[in-house]
Amino acid sequence: MTYRAPIKDMLFGMKELASLASLQSIPAFADFDLDTAQAVLEECAKLNENVIAPLNVAGDRNPSSWKDGVVTTTPGFKDAFRQFAEGGWQGLQHPADFGGQGLPKTIGAACVEMLNSANLSFALCPLLTDGAIEALLTAGTPEQQQTYLPKMIDGTWTGTMNLTEPQAGSDLALVRTRAEPLPDGSYKIFGTKIFITYGEHDMAENIVHLVLARVVGAPEGVKGISLFLVPKFMVNADGSLGARNDAHCVSIEHKMGIKASPTAVLQFGDHGGAIGYLIGQENRGLEYMFIMMNAARYAVGVQGIAVAERAYQKAASYARDRVQSRPVDGSLPGSAAIIHHPDVRRMLMTMRALTEGCRAMALVAASAYDAAHQHPDAEVRKQNQAFYEFLVPLVKGYSTEMSLEVTDLGVQVHGGMGFIEETGAAQYYRDAKILTIYEGTTAIQANDLVGRKTARDGGQTAKAIAAQIAATEAELAKRDSAASKAMLKRLSAARLALIDVIEFVAGQSKANPNAVFAGSVPYLMLAGNVVAGWQMARALIVAEDQLAAGVDAPFMAAKIATARFYAEHILARAGGLRDSIVEGADSVTAMSLDAF
Amino acid sequence: MTYRAPIKDMLFGMKELASLASLQSIPAFADFDLDTAQAVLEECAKLNENVIAPLNVAGDRNPSSWKDGVVTTTPGFKDAFRQFAEGGWQGLQHPADFGGQGLPKTIGAACVEMLNSANLSFALCPLLTDGAIEALLTAGTPEQQQTYLPKMIDGTWTGTMNLTEPQAGSDLALVRTRAEPLPDGSYKIFGTKIFITYGEHDMAENIVHLVLARVVGAPEGVKGISLFLVPKFMVNADGSLGARNDAHCVSIEHKMGIKASPTAVLQFGDHGGAIGYLIGQENRGLEYMFIMMNAARYAVGVQGIAVAERAYQKAASYARDRVQSRPVDGSLPGSAAIIHHPDVRRMLMTMRALTEGCRAMALVAASAYDAAHQHPDAEVRKQNQAFYEFLVPLVKGYSTEMSLEVTDLGVQVHGGMGFIEETGAAQYYRDAKILTIYEGTTAIQANDLVGRKTARDGGQTAKAIAAQIAATEAELAKRDSAASKAMLKRLSAARLALIDVIEFVAGQSKANPNAVFAGSVPYLMLAGNVVAGWQMARALIVAEDQLAAGVDAPFMAAKIATARFYAEHILARAGGLRDSIVEGADSVTAMSLDAF
Repeated sequence: MTYRAPIKDMLFGMKELASLASLQSIPAFADFDLDTAQAVLEECAKLNENVIAPLNVAGDRNPSSWKDGVVTTTPGFKDAFRQFAEGGWQGLQHPADFGGQGLPKTIGAACVEMLNSANLSFALCPLLTDGAIEALLTAGTPEQQQTYLPKMIDGTWTGTMNLTEPQAGSDLALVRTRAEPLPDGSYKIFGTKIFITYGEHDMAENIVHLVLARVVGAPEGVKGISLFLVPKFMVNADGSLGARNDAHCVSIEHKMGIKASPTAVLQFGDHGGAIGYLIGQENRGLEYMFIMMNAARYAVGVQGIAVAERAYQKAASYARDRVQSRPVDGSLPGSAAIIHHPDVRRMLMTMRALTEGCRAMALVAASAYDAAHQHPDAEVRKQNQAFYEFLVPLVKGYSTEMSLEVTDLGVQVHGGMGFIEETGAAQYYRDAKILTIYEGTTAIQANDLVGRKTARDGGQTAKAIAAQIAATEAELAKRDSAASKAMLKRLSAARLALIDVIEFVAGQSKANPNAVFAGSVPYLMLAGNVVAGWQMARALIVAEDQLAAGVDAPFMAAKIATARFYAEHILARAGGLRDSIVEGADSVTAMSLDAF
Repeated sequence: MTYRAPIKDMLFGMKELASLASLQSIPAFADFDLDTAQAVLEECAKLNENVIAPLNVAGDRNPSSWKDGVVTTTPGFKDAFRQFAEGGWQGLQHPADFGGQGLPKTIGAACVEMLNSANLSFALCPLLTDGAIEALLTAGTPEQQQTYLPKMIDGTWTGTMNLTEPQAGSDLALVRTRAEPLPDGSYKIFGTKIFITYGEHDMAENIVHLVLARVVGAPEGVKGISLFLVPKFMVNADGSLGARNDAHCVSIEHKMGIKASPTAVLQFGDHGGAIGYLIGQENRGLEYMFIMMNAARYAVGVQGIAVAERAYQKAASYARDRVQSRPVDGSLPGSAAIIHHPDVRRMLMTMRALTEGCRAMALVAASAYDAAHQHPDAEVRKQNQAFYEFLVPLVKGYSTEMSLEVTDLGVQVHGGMGFIEETGAAQYYRDAKILTIYEGTTAIQANDLVGRKTARDGGQTAKAIAAQIAATEAELAKRDSAASKAMLKRLSAARLALIDVIEFVAGQSKANPNAVFAGSVPYLMLAGNVVAGWQMARALIVAEDQLAAGVDAPFMAAKIATARFYAEHILARAGGLRDSIVEGADSVTAMSLDAF
């Protein structure tokens, strides 16, 4: 087996860190206890381990291909997608009203991780469909919802997000695709969209494109952008498919990684105009787009965790098997499995600590999302919403940046074999690199963290989180173990570093925006590091107590060791980031532009 | 033009940091003044910019291919190699006695950088030949030298290093290739060697394989390894080529990067035995191998600098052209070139600072090598040798690890376009990953740094370097500029962190080897960071003085800005590394092996 789902760690995170039990007190989630979660995860693991993971290498070697406008996916993908759809996995987190299962995100996120560990390229199709479903749930008319959602939720049709154009990447103000109103209330869409994930493929009967475009005469900039639904095939009144719409895939990209996932260039309207339907109100497209985008950003963060987990498993397995050199402490007389060498352990522990830390952060964020959406108390909803929104750029930005470090180490553990494509470690390294780019680069996440999430409320949400971290430190301070002491020392120093940076960001963002944005990505890396480290601290406390109580000693001991490693090797990076941000801003922009 | 050689920065480094003028006082180098260096660099730049750089993308798209034992290199490579050979570039640093030009390494290293910036895959052929030449110069008989060196130095023949076997990578004790003595003093060689760079190709008339093997009956382990010369074609007494030797390429690897460079599996002796000639004495093969290896390690470090430079140039060029979003400070009314955005500047400055710092470190190391080999005073030679040997693992390990960070940022600056292969940024990311692996992984470099370079002399060499850094700090302390003050603060803190680590390594390596080796790679990263940062501090001082004197203001101002950025953003990482190494060793190896 090439992938084994880390169910135990997921359940630990749900139960002990993301408080699945307290979610149950929310009426919408009353049915979802830990046993249910475990049953879902085990079923999910079966499909991903046995059906979808084995297709990962095949997808890299035999990517999706384009011919005359038709995209053929990797052999096996279509069948696997049928199994995925028939198992109900597309609808896992979506409302029962439209055929979904209404699971909390806290459980759904773990399933998303498994799917992405199994096959990042494959998982992108459901990921984008999820985003389109969210947008329709929020802003679609009842008729649109009834026409499209059941078929998207049951996997008969899939969805896409059409944002980017050649001149409009991060800067959506530059979108030029235009929409011309027709007498019947629909629109004709004209324009070119690029980087459209699963913009064309053969895995579903229809593709529901959600497209940003400007209604003729709309204001310039982001305030004149509307969202349209443009189906690949028109849908008749009875739900059957009609004529082919004028939305065509003219090519797909040749990419460094996630090769099985077709990245389409779509032409809308080259043959008279693609028929599109307005979603929600005119000129509010960006708002609805952010609904898709936020769901997708969180999911891309989970992709980082997922590919890191897979890279870790592969590297650990190789390190156990590969025999090379004697241990430096002379503990074995001859050559040993390389897992005995301290530097290999350092690499594996780094991979493991980063992955577990980010997983814990993502689960805690998911639990906040669930409470923010379904808790009966408005104040609780509001607090959880603020917490979740603060965490989204960290889950997206930090987890994906860490996945680059982890997949690099994964290759490194393999030595020369890691560079040979047949080994498989290189694929993770190539695949992961898209994660810090799409659905908003790390810098875009950092802008969000600085602007909307920190400066806008004067750092209040950020400081409230720092106060929660301080409360965890108070718990640690009551404990005597070496691991607790080490964690307390590093977490406390890291939190103080974070507070310095929060004050710098909140205080300077108006007066000196260049200085603040010069440190925006380091701030994101610091905040992600500390929030994930905080979860590892909480995990450490639980694990020590459970170990003392005799519960699952091997798992708890490993959790303690991993948490301590996180403290001493990952949280230890915090001070340098603080210094660079708070004291080093000027040197970022000091050099003359001519000198580059 | 896709690459422009950074001649000005190279000359600045040679003159101001690597003291080219004082090298001239060494008789062997009396002819090599700055004007000569400049002339050589300009000529070298022409060939690399115009002939070799344009083949880099071609090599990636149309790699070397294997059919029936024959390897065909990328179209254009053979012609380019002729031009390279005819220009005398293979012999640049080799003795005039055998047709070389006898240039100091201080100049040669810059030429090696250019070649590798132009085309990492192409450059590997001369790089390996250089190593083989070094080994023959050191341990070959006069007859062997006369037979092989002139043709290798003029590029008629090329050389290889045959170390690795499937079971013997970092651990050469496991080498199994065997050598059976023949009555005429030659040997028959039998075995399989893997990962042999340019082990077979069509760019030269003959290939001189240097092969590690065990003479039948030799001791086990590394003490029973000898070095053999195994030509692809036998060489007749008159120097003409004779029969094909029994050394055959049975396949080449399918790699993530450097695809144009054929990585061969070589079978020796499948058809009766490959004829080989002992180099030097029996069972001293490892010693000679280290001569090749050390030359190659330094050169691989330069490869890191080279690919980083190329990635930087590409990213800077894209950032100047790509228009996207308004500046955060409102300084422009509409969308601006992304180089105006602080985070893009941060990425470009990081790339630039790391590249310039490592280049300066490499040039200073090269100058020590030159003095160590050619200075008339034995004591000066000895001191320079110790300094050079300490720097080799830093040049190799730190420069290549930094190249991963730089090529990652290079992709990131390009956003989504960076992930599309046609853009070219992804190739650097894929190519660079081999650099931290071959010729000894970063961990192997770190073992060398810990064991032979630090623990063996109780940290004396390391501390002597720290004392030199302190002397530079004393110079900084006399200055008033903000840049000097910022540099002093960070360099001083980083040096103190380094001293803590040196004491930890020197003090604990016997008593607690696991703890020391748990921090070996972080120690290497810290030492490389500080030594490169020290060179940036020296550069800052020179640049401030020259700026004040009105010399080349744009260049000097950029150097000051880059040095300050290095201090505030790269040296700032030192404290975290120190804490992890000195206080975090236990958590590296604490987790039970079963738990991975």
